[in-house]
Amino acid sequence: MIKEDRHTSARAGVLSTPHGEIPTPVFMPVGTQGTVKTLSQQELAVAGAGIILGNAYHLYLRPGLETMREAGGLHRFIGWDHALLTDSGGYQVFSLADLNRITEEGVAFQSHIDGAHHLFTPEKVMEIEHTLGADIIMAFDECTPYPCTHEYAKQSHERTLRWAERCQKHLEILSDREERPEQALFGIVQGSVFPDLRKQSAKALSAMNFPGYAIGGLSVGEPKPVMLDMLEEVLPHLPTEKPHYLMGIGYPEDLVECVARGMDMFDCVVPTRYGRNGTVFTRRGKLVVKNAPYARDFSPIDPECSCPVCQNYTRAYLRHLFQAGEILALRLATLHNIYFFMEMMHEMREAILHDVFSEWSERFRARYA
Amino acid sequence: MIKEDRHTSARAGVLSTPHGEIPTPVFMPVGTQGTVKTLSQQELAVAGAGIILGNAYHLYLRPGLETMREAGGLHRFIGWDHALLTDSGGYQVFSLADLNRITEEGVAFQSHIDGAHHLFTPEKVMEIEHTLGADIIMAFDECTPYPCTHEYAKQSHERTLRWAERCQKHLEILSDREERPEQALFGIVQGSVFPDLRKQSAKALSAMNFPGYAIGGLSVGEPKPVMLDMLEEVLPHLPTEKPHYLMGIGYPEDLVECVARGMDMFDCVVPTRYGRNGTVFTRRGKLVVKNAPYARDFSPIDPECSCPVCQNYTRAYLRHLFQAGEILALRLATLHNIYFFMEMMHEMREAILHDVFSEWSERFRARYA
Repeated sequence: MIKEDRHTSARAGVLSTPHGEIPTPVFMPVGTQGTVKTLSQQELAVAGAGIILGNAYHLYLRPGLETMREAGGLHRFIGWDHALLTDSGGYQVFSLADLNRITEEGVAFQSHIDGAHHLFTPEKVMEIEHTLGADIIMAFDECTPYPCTHEYAKQSHERTLRWAERCQKHLEILSDREERPEQALFGIVQGSVFPDLRKQSAKALSAMNFPGYAIGGLSVGEPKPVMLDMLEEVLPHLPTEKPHYLMGIGYPEDLVECVARGMDMFDCVVPTRYGRNGTVFTRRGKLVVKNAPYARDFSPIDPECSCPVCQNYTRAYLRHLFQAGEILALRLATLHNIYFFMEMMHEMREAILHDVFSEWSERFRARYA
Repeated sequence: MIKEDRHTSARAGVLSTPHGEIPTPVFMPVGTQGTVKTLSQQELAVAGAGIILGNAYHLYLRPGLETMREAGGLHRFIGWDHALLTDSGGYQVFSLADLNRITEEGVAFQSHIDGAHHLFTPEKVMEIEHTLGADIIMAFDECTPYPCTHEYAKQSHERTLRWAERCQKHLEILSDREERPEQALFGIVQGSVFPDLRKQSAKALSAMNFPGYAIGGLSVGEPKPVMLDMLEEVLPHLPTEKPHYLMGIGYPEDLVECVARGMDMFDCVVPTRYGRNGTVFTRRGKLVVKNAPYARDFSPIDPECSCPVCQNYTRAYLRHLFQAGEILALRLATLHNIYFFMEMMHEMREAILHDVFSEWSERFRARYA
């Protein structure tokens, strides 16, 4: 961390990885299956993405660990020289798979692709993430559904803590086996929407001295103020000097709120999924570019945007491509959205560095609304 | 035309358009709805595409002429600074639309999108192509199905000749109305697989002094030797100094045969459609990269290819993307295929210029088979 905002808890920092230094706050595009949907790795790099996500659950099921091992890891498999973070698949095991059973040992589930039976334990997930070889890897956790009882959330987050310890231990064993840059294992704070559990979780994980801390289990249906409250409960109990990663967030307006509270890293499918659905982000708010009002609008998506889409194409052309069912529509909308998110994070960082973050956010909110 | 091969009828030339000089022989990627499927205009330009196609039928139906007029033509609508050729929609009216009636006046049909009734006359089609404003535009013709009777083919090609004359006249009227670079209207030789009709058609069109000549109605189901015979029947009756465009052809092996016979221009959906279906072209033949044998093949699609796909990605990654249903699969396979076709045309031209076309084709055929 290199600079704290004077009026808020916003911070600017640098995340050091074996594949480059990443200025924070940072938004990480999601490349679940080894591709940020519709984009090429070259486009992502040019857009300024210094780190993207992969998903252990998806990549374990397809193409599988043997292929990943032979390829020499995810970086080489997908042709990406910058940093990678892999999610542990905890969220996917609970949301996508046919869940069979959660025990202390781990989670038994059936693949959403072919119904095959699998068992994810903390050790197994570390083996997967070690094989994928991302720069940052996430501990195996249970992402509790919303709502859930205090009793269930307590039981679950305590098990997640025990799993975090097993992850840490097993990664050490795996790392000792081969010489290669160390992978940074992040712990994940759980505890649903219960302040006491969130606090317990944060304290216990802090004591385990992870190189970074994530807050998981938010943006799963709870009201937005509750999510922000949880950040305020958790952050005082996490080490200040370590990166704070808010998983699965969010909309542009959320990013501003969460940066203001001291979060450094974010990932979300919003820019890519919205893009594919024909919605683009602009400094004046969202715009459903595939809709009729844009059929003869020959202006760029966002006149203030310097991305290659806004430089070369009009809203009318994008609208036509969506109407005609053309793949270029999905590409262009996604690419613009990724630029928008990258640019937004960059602006926030600059504002923090120049002590004008509050002014920046106020102006952003006013124009975006 | 700047150079004739010594041993074959192959020629190297330059096509001058208001949007650049295009070295021939040339392959023109097909951008039916104002986009070469999955690719951006920037990628096409970098791949060396100096001219791409648009389709009058599709663009007339969607986004429609009003939008095109307001946009200032197809170049501006799609953001493409290089040359454009529009097909007249003759082929589409007969193959895609619900055909109602062909008369001397024109063709009444129903849109394949919404069933609305439309009438294409030569005059209407010239109005459309004039509005689109491509550098090269095609006369409105009837593309006869295969097989058809001599009687029908005769009747049809004679009507196509009369339509060609009406196109020529009407374009003159339209051109006189506004000041802008002249559009080159190409006549289209028809006559099915009947040598006498093909010859008649070629002679009659030649007398009308078009700036270029296309051969249409081939590759519609007839045996390949018949197609090549038709070229040999037609070409002696077309002006040598004018460009010769073979519509809708073809596979790499076809391009070699047709260049050898004196054709200069080609268009075909083969590289794009095959790419989207998971088939890529290499100097050693086609390869269904989405198939299982490539799951752990970490070599590039074509080790001799210098395209960005072969430089950055492996067969195994492409196979994974196809398996996972990812859009990047379609993009990468298409982009490689377009490079392959561009590179192939470039090599043929160089071979013609250096008097080694026969050797080049022999080597190409031997390796590609």
